[in-house]
Amino acid sequence: MGDKTALVIFTPSGKRGNIPVGTPVLSAARQLGVDLDSVCGGRGICSKCQVTPGFGKFPKHGVTVAKGALSGWNAVEARYDEKRGLKEGRRLGCQACIQGDVVIDVPPGSQVHRQVVRKAATRRQITMDPATQLRYVEVREPDMHEPTGDLQRLCEALKRDWDISDPEASPAFLASLQHALRDGGWKATVAVWRDHRGGAPVLLDIWPGFFEGRLHGLAIDLGSTTISAHLCDLRDGQVLASSGVMNPQIRFGEDLMSRVSYAMMNPGGDAEMTREVREAIGQLAIELSDETDIPLRQIVEAVVVCNPVMHHLLLGIDPVELGQAPFALATSNAVNTHAADFGLASINPSANAYVLPCIAGHVGADCAAVALSEEPYKSEDLILICDVGTNAEILLGSKDRVLACSSPTGPAFEGAQISSGQRAAPGAIERVEIDPMTKKPRFQVIGSDLWSDEAGFAEATAVTGVTGICGSGIIEAVAEMRMAGLLDASGLIGSAEQTGSGLCVPDGRTHAYVIWDARDDGGPLIAVTQGDIRAIQLAKSALYAGARLLMDELEVERVDRIALAGAFGSHISPRHAMVLGMIPDCDPAKVRSVGNAAGTGARIALCDISARARIEAEVLRVQKVETAIEPRFQEHFVAANAIPHASDLFPHLPELPDVSFNAGGGRSADSPTGRRRRRRTQDPLLRP
Amino acid sequence: MGDKTALVIFTPSGKRGNIPVGTPVLSAARQLGVDLDSVCGGRGICSKCQVTPGFGKFPKHGVTVAKGALSGWNAVEARYDEKRGLKEGRRLGCQACIQGDVVIDVPPGSQVHRQVVRKAATRRQITMDPATQLRYVEVREPDMHEPTGDLQRLCEALKRDWDISDPEASPAFLASLQHALRDGGWKATVAVWRDHRGGAPVLLDIWPGFFEGRLHGLAIDLGSTTISAHLCDLRDGQVLASSGVMNPQIRFGEDLMSRVSYAMMNPGGDAEMTREVREAIGQLAIELSDETDIPLRQIVEAVVVCNPVMHHLLLGIDPVELGQAPFALATSNAVNTHAADFGLASINPSANAYVLPCIAGHVGADCAAVALSEEPYKSEDLILICDVGTNAEILLGSKDRVLACSSPTGPAFEGAQISSGQRAAPGAIERVEIDPMTKKPRFQVIGSDLWSDEAGFAEATAVTGVTGICGSGIIEAVAEMRMAGLLDASGLIGSAEQTGSGLCVPDGRTHAYVIWDARDDGGPLIAVTQGDIRAIQLAKSALYAGARLLMDELEVERVDRIALAGAFGSHISPRHAMVLGMIPDCDPAKVRSVGNAAGTGARIALCDISARARIEAEVLRVQKVETAIEPRFQEHFVAANAIPHASDLFPHLPELPDVSFNAGGGRSADSPTGRRRRRRTQDPLLRP
Repeated sequence: MGDKTALVIFTPSGKRGNIPVGTPVLSAARQLGVDLDSVCGGRGICSKCQVTPGFGKFPKHGVTVAKGALSGWNAVEARYDEKRGLKEGRRLGCQACIQGDVVIDVPPGSQVHRQVVRKAATRRQITMDPATQLRYVEVREPDMHEPTGDLQRLCEALKRDWDISDPEASPAFLASLQHALRDGGWKATVAVWRDHRGGAPVLLDIWPGFFEGRLHGLAIDLGSTTISAHLCDLRDGQVLASSGVMNPQIRFGEDLMSRVSYAMMNPGGDAEMTREVREAIGQLAIELSDETDIPLRQIVEAVVVCNPVMHHLLLGIDPVELGQAPFALATSNAVNTHAADFGLASINPSANAYVLPCIAGHVGADCAAVALSEEPYKSEDLILICDVGTNAEILLGSKDRVLACSSPTGPAFEGAQISSGQRAAPGAIERVEIDPMTKKPRFQVIGSDLWSDEAGFAEATAVTGVTGICGSGIIEAVAEMRMAGLLDASGLIGSAEQTGSGLCVPDGRTHAYVIWDARDDGGPLIAVTQGDIRAIQLAKSALYAGARLLMDELEVERVDRIALAGAFGSHISPRHAMVLGMIPDCDPAKVRSVGNAAGTGARIALCDISARARIEAEVLRVQKVETAIEPRFQEHFVAANAIPHASDLFPHLPELPDVSFNAGGGRSADSPTGRRRRRRTQDPLLRP
Repeated sequence: MGDKTALVIFTPSGKRGNIPVGTPVLSAARQLGVDLDSVCGGRGICSKCQVTPGFGKFPKHGVTVAKGALSGWNAVEARYDEKRGLKEGRRLGCQACIQGDVVIDVPPGSQVHRQVVRKAATRRQITMDPATQLRYVEVREPDMHEPTGDLQRLCEALKRDWDISDPEASPAFLASLQHALRDGGWKATVAVWRDHRGGAPVLLDIWPGFFEGRLHGLAIDLGSTTISAHLCDLRDGQVLASSGVMNPQIRFGEDLMSRVSYAMMNPGGDAEMTREVREAIGQLAIELSDETDIPLRQIVEAVVVCNPVMHHLLLGIDPVELGQAPFALATSNAVNTHAADFGLASINPSANAYVLPCIAGHVGADCAAVALSEEPYKSEDLILICDVGTNAEILLGSKDRVLACSSPTGPAFEGAQISSGQRAAPGAIERVEIDPMTKKPRFQVIGSDLWSDEAGFAEATAVTGVTGICGSGIIEAVAEMRMAGLLDASGLIGSAEQTGSGLCVPDGRTHAYVIWDARDDGGPLIAVTQGDIRAIQLAKSALYAGARLLMDELEVERVDRIALAGAFGSHISPRHAMVLGMIPDCDPAKVRSVGNAAGTGARIALCDISARARIEAEVLRVQKVETAIEPRFQEHFVAANAIPHASDLFPHLPELPDVSFNAGGGRSADSPTGRRRRRRTQDPLLRP
């Protein structure tokens, strides 16, 4: 048997070789370096090694496969098929043996490092290769006359079957080892964590026998204003549930610098903020576990992305140095530690946590995560990436060179400091349209696809209600108000008299525009006030100034592409962002909304261990630009206050109504004209 | 200057070489591989690199050293001398530069790996090379335009000055890093831990500027009955203070098996015992810190030795498997972990703890520590090592082969389960002599060198009193009773009538021998009861049977040397141990008491990182013998009950009085004869 060989061709990899007849397909795959999964190590238990043999003529490969090219269906396969069902044409790779020349397809579900298509706009693929994976082993029983410990015999099996050398075992692992081995009859499934920096692997947990469950991880986006967490399946990268809360540190200060000040002024203040944020994250983990019925023990990994101040407060480091030049980080490297070390004690007690590297004192792990998600360092053309949060993280560059900065936009884009603002959650207004003729708004809320003026809207939103307006909603509302002539270039809301709209109501000395008035039904009044406009103007000016600063540094006047990212409930609308003047001029077709890129970056680092090494290397190549000490930043900031900007900088921007209101509320001479409205409707940017 | 070289000879190493003129002595030492200490890296701060240059003719080395062979006394040395004083003839190696041929002596205090002579009988040397050492560095200040973290710039300095690569930093370290660097003006002293298994070094702690303090470690001997801890200076290995407590787990069971039973019968019982022992260790650390005024933060290492059951309970592992065949350990390897992982949270929060490897389910880390201390695997002749505790750890062998077993002696040798027994502490009787003519005892107590019949004894013991009898005291008392004819070969205490001593008083149906009666002064009555004799007989039979079992396994009838170890207050007396029949026959001159060998082994592993690798390798070569399932162990145990044993096995044993008492208390026919007493006084064993 050992003398005769057969030609074995694997698809889709195309890997081929001559394999001794009698070899199991799984072994042949390993010999040829084919990516074929197995958790049980070829014992016919896990069914991860399913393959689809092809029979007949394969002109492309130059072989003809006879019916007997694989050994017959055996008892193990029959039992598996009976118990759980094996798809038509499938075989277990560890049972079917090579008998003759054969073409064997490895379906995506049987690949260890299968590609998972990201759901965001870029549709980039994530390779599944998480740090923690399950390994099934059969362990030698103890022998009084050769008294090695259970751990040593387990390690012997892990080395033999999985080539795992000299792992370390956590104290919690040691405590559960003996029961697991005996309960499983000396068979067990071990969760093994690997260190991408080459350190020793760690045995995290153990289950008796072959463990049917799956491992999960948390991708945590720890923002100044909101904390969101995604519970991911570590086999296929799927997000099973997401949850978010307001950052409880807000009571110590709305923005980062006020929290740093709080730490400076109050001894122990940093520890207080650390405790609050850790508790909030621990609680999110428990909620996600409850929601999905996934035991906390099976959550074995966490990846955190955050800005430098949140990074320090999470890790228990006083952030005071980040509040003053030269803004020195305690550490800029990635942090790879026990999740319990920063209070994430509710998940598996031995779980590991990975915090992405920081780029500079004001450019954090969240920016690194955006880079990992959007990969500017691989781009052929010049891309500007704006991640909009309480601080905006901005990246500009291409494969030759990437610059980064952070800009203090404040929390307005997240719905905070807005009169009717709220976090992106069901019931929040996320899209707004204002008819330029009637000046009447219509809107969509999170949780329903219907517009507010469509039939059935009331029924569709009966449960959530209409509760407020989130970040993407306020951006659209302000841009639409400007386009409808309700707002002048300086940002003043006109009176009912000036605009001809009864929805522009007096609000103290200024005016507010009413979007939703449910007060008669005991509901809220949702309006955009002059204060809201000012908050959005400050935020958008800061974002724009940051982007311009990087463009100055690169000595460019135009960018080829723009990616708009943000932890919004819905995606930010590129055309509204352009009207608002949040971003520099760009061909509208090249402005994309990429969703929560920082969260996506966290998810990539969670699913693929090699991404960690990749971003750690790339971050060292990113050139940091410090906005806080750059006079040009202030200049750009002041210049960007108006809506719109000087037209020579924005050839792609539609002409906006040149109304001008005064605070008194008298009618302006220039109301929107028919010509302008006509031009607008023709503009491809504004009618997607 | 770079062209000219001079011959530099270092003593005592004899290392020599031609060194460019102008080179500092410290650099020359490093180039030639000479062991010259420096904590500050050659900056004239730490004074660890002191050397003594020699001048004049050195015929042995073939050189003549001129007065100008080293550069003149410089300002740094003058300042140091003024501030702290430099011994006559000493120079700072980092300041004095080579100018011509020179002979330079490195005094012991300036050697990194200086040899420390152990105080025990063997006088073996310990090389000082602890896992955690201080490293002084000067760190680059942060630069906003090159925004690396403080940690990264610290690591850069550690790599440059100390060749420390890619260290890991604990979260606690990160939290204290920024203040320390700024308070010290970008100079700091870092405690760096090294992993003897080749893992990444760890940054444990940091102090601003040059830290004048020293680092310390705890050597912990965790016994079933007593827990002792020694606080050691990690520069010179000196024991600064020792402290001990009764193991609080005693309330769950006197011996190991009853504690295992408690864990089996009571859910959560193991966790309860774990909590108690951890608390006791934490408390010991606090006491030692209080006693010595050494801050807990400066205690950065702990080494623990213990038997397997205590090992599992300390680490939080249910010991149930150790109570039943095949006595499987959860892990037999050494455990290298955070001290806080097993509740030793009172010392430096990042401190490491090392638990020596176990040899088998009944032969623990304490036995490995004894082996590390006594090194049977290096012995040319056959050595028997008995470490006497609640379980005796027994090693037999030589460089060819070493056997080990454990024997359940019970706590009698530690003074427990003895009517007047107590832990070895001031006030405890530790030595006993009984006059064979008058049958009257005299004794010494711990804390005084006077015998109880010497003048001044009452004053000397006024503070402590005479409180009870410790392990070494009870062994001597029983052996002396046998030699004085107060006890027959079967272990019965005679009555006053039988023995002719009024100190043999009735005690229920049996008799007791009064050693100290202070009842008239409100003090205790300290006597040896028949129950005490039985407890000692069981203990000594178990010890003897274990030793014999190993001898059977090696097929030997005699051993060349015996080392008696035990965590006694005083050393165990070899001659009394032989009379009692604790140990097999051996030339009395070759029986040594080596004190607390397990504790010494712990201290060696604390002071010398290479000892950890050494004992881990040696332990794998030790052959384990399981007493619990060996029928011959029972046979030896029963045969060893009497005092003395069959005489053919004990040619070195003196003839003992062949009195025989019956329980009734009638006088025996055979009282001690003059002949026998005469022979005794001539016996070199009994009159040391």
